[in-house]
Amino acid sequence: MDYKISNRMRDMKPSAIREIFKSLGKPGAISFAAGNPSPLSFPVDAISALSADILAKDSTTALQYGVTEGYLPLRGSVAARLKAKFAIDTDSNMTIITTGGQQALELACKALCNEGDAILCEEPTFIGALNAFRSIGAKPVGVPLESDGINIEILEEKLKTTPNVKMIYVIPTFQNPAGLTTSAEKRKKIYELAKKYDVVILEDNPYGELRFSGEDILPIKSMDTEGRVIYCGSFSKVLSAGIRVGFAVGGEEIIQKMVVAKQVEDVHTNVFFQMLCHRFLTEYDFDAHIQSIRDLYRHKATLMLDSLDRFMPKSVSFTRPEGGLFLWCTLPEGYSMSEYVKRAADNNVFVVPGVAFCCDTEGTSQSFRLNYSTPSDEDITKGIEILGGLV
Amino acid sequence: MDYKISNRMRDMKPSAIREIFKSLGKPGAISFAAGNPSPLSFPVDAISALSADILAKDSTTALQYGVTEGYLPLRGSVAARLKAKFAIDTDSNMTIITTGGQQALELACKALCNEGDAILCEEPTFIGALNAFRSIGAKPVGVPLESDGINIEILEEKLKTTPNVKMIYVIPTFQNPAGLTTSAEKRKKIYELAKKYDVVILEDNPYGELRFSGEDILPIKSMDTEGRVIYCGSFSKVLSAGIRVGFAVGGEEIIQKMVVAKQVEDVHTNVFFQMLCHRFLTEYDFDAHIQSIRDLYRHKATLMLDSLDRFMPKSVSFTRPEGGLFLWCTLPEGYSMSEYVKRAADNNVFVVPGVAFCCDTEGTSQSFRLNYSTPSDEDITKGIEILGGLV
Repeated sequence: MDYKISNRMRDMKPSAIREIFKSLGKPGAISFAAGNPSPLSFPVDAISALSADILAKDSTTALQYGVTEGYLPLRGSVAARLKAKFAIDTDSNMTIITTGGQQALELACKALCNEGDAILCEEPTFIGALNAFRSIGAKPVGVPLESDGINIEILEEKLKTTPNVKMIYVIPTFQNPAGLTTSAEKRKKIYELAKKYDVVILEDNPYGELRFSGEDILPIKSMDTEGRVIYCGSFSKVLSAGIRVGFAVGGEEIIQKMVVAKQVEDVHTNVFFQMLCHRFLTEYDFDAHIQSIRDLYRHKATLMLDSLDRFMPKSVSFTRPEGGLFLWCTLPEGYSMSEYVKRAADNNVFVVPGVAFCCDTEGTSQSFRLNYSTPSDEDITKGIEILGGLV
Repeated sequence: MDYKISNRMRDMKPSAIREIFKSLGKPGAISFAAGNPSPLSFPVDAISALSADILAKDSTTALQYGVTEGYLPLRGSVAARLKAKFAIDTDSNMTIITTGGQQALELACKALCNEGDAILCEEPTFIGALNAFRSIGAKPVGVPLESDGINIEILEEKLKTTPNVKMIYVIPTFQNPAGLTTSAEKRKKIYELAKKYDVVILEDNPYGELRFSGEDILPIKSMDTEGRVIYCGSFSKVLSAGIRVGFAVGGEEIIQKMVVAKQVEDVHTNVFFQMLCHRFLTEYDFDAHIQSIRDLYRHKATLMLDSLDRFMPKSVSFTRPEGGLFLWCTLPEGYSMSEYVKRAADNNVFVVPGVAFCCDTEGTSQSFRLNYSTPSDEDITKGIEILGGLV
């Protein structure tokens, strides 16, 4: 039959990254395109032991319907971690467990945005957030990202001139795709501007635990005294991505609306892995586990940066992340990015072109994203050498 | 801060059933309010054995990101089961794995409905579907449900007179909340009307495997030659509700839009339990497992019906389900349902009043839903005696 697709979904496309994945089957393909954590970061032995124990001792809770807000002990242990690690005042906020961090972003937008409302975003920004906002009919509006965070002057300008701004969406720590971190000073300014123009901040921090050099900077949420910041996090990069467990913390009124929105999407997040996350957080040495992931990613990032220094012409610039999974490479003006990415693919090396991360779907970019958490050491060296040779 | 909640979420309330659950903590409470499967239906030993084996042999697949469409082997085994059991032509359709059956309903609505579009529903109908439709701005329009299915004359009348009807939503087998089953003849008429008025049928079949008396009737989807029916199912009532694994089958174009919509909601359904569902379907005797649930629910339904025959005055009518989890009880005209439900709660017996299942939020009902899968045998007898005494 001839379906009449809804307006909101008619022009939505699968993410460009997914499309690239379809080319990855080729033998010898080197992918810097994924956003996957390293499989070496999964604590398989602990997960196996906990799984067996949960099913032996509490199978009915694990396999029965749960509440939409999330498994109560996990809500408590997540809040305790956020308080201890990131100075987030979880007493005056409420925590919801979501089906991955992605769902937290989508629910926040659904609770706040009508069709046509604007969300100010770092440009470039996380493609999954952009598509979530678009699926709800909200309009992402880009504000350039600089080496120390979003451009504050342009942010204020956009707050003044853009109709119906509801949120500022930021990934202040080890940003995806750019690998950049917003300075403490800029975080303060973003919070002040949100207050001045009375908009919500959606702070996305899936990589915040994964600093491998430099000093921690507290999230914007740590300054929040009035429930202005909805803070989102995830177990995807610190335990397992496939289990789909994330969370959001914010003022009770807004989180309660997200609970109602979540109820109609999936009733609740799978209970078994909520129990497992709680027990991993409280019964294992979570800090030691995180440290092992940091060591792994420090090694991989260093290897990639060394390879870039060695193989890339000086005209190519790239960011030097202090944590997270990504870095951002920029070609000199005049290069055709689409042609470069295609030539890389012809040489079996896959990267995500910067246009995928633009707020404006007609945007252009001279940059591409490189992921270092997934490829092997050998592939990192070999792949960067090939990319360097193609400039 | 003073949040500006979106129009679509501003008036959305948590489901009435959830609110009732909050009163269930009291000692000695007898609940007929839940929609939970019996914990006795969870094959815990098989789940434990499969969990251990998946983590031992294929932990990277189980714990890493997966594809939005769902784990390919499970898509295949679900399609095979639907073909063998329900004569569904899965060759010319596409299967998507969803985070519970709830997500399948929500994604179908999101892919097809604009704000203000109408969805014709059986009245009463599943509260989770109603809230999903409302959250997208679609308007559920009720068509009376009769003992052999939806009233066909009123359905056609509403198809003629209601502006922008996009879908007919039906639960033809062991309907929630009424426990009624649509006849083969009416299924055919519903399909013909959908064709005549060029609308999609959303066929929800979470209980279809659970027939404990009478003869199976094939789903509407089995007649579908043109992708007009989106068929939704779930593992919640046949394996575990807490794992959140469901599915939808439909024409490729519409399922692809649901894939894009799902991607922004939760990227994919948790991979571990998709693998487990696949292995349970293909390595265990699924039919024997289903038979044990049927035997259990036949026993419980019979006990509840016997108790109703014994304790309810003749002026009270109730449905006699041939499968599923629910039956539907109707008080004589003139009774105040809200007062009756309140008095029942004061006597520690909890039921869901019929108004919760009305398309029109201002609707009224003389009925209430009774669940027999969750309470103990003792509670069924005792609770129905109390309910009878209150009429």
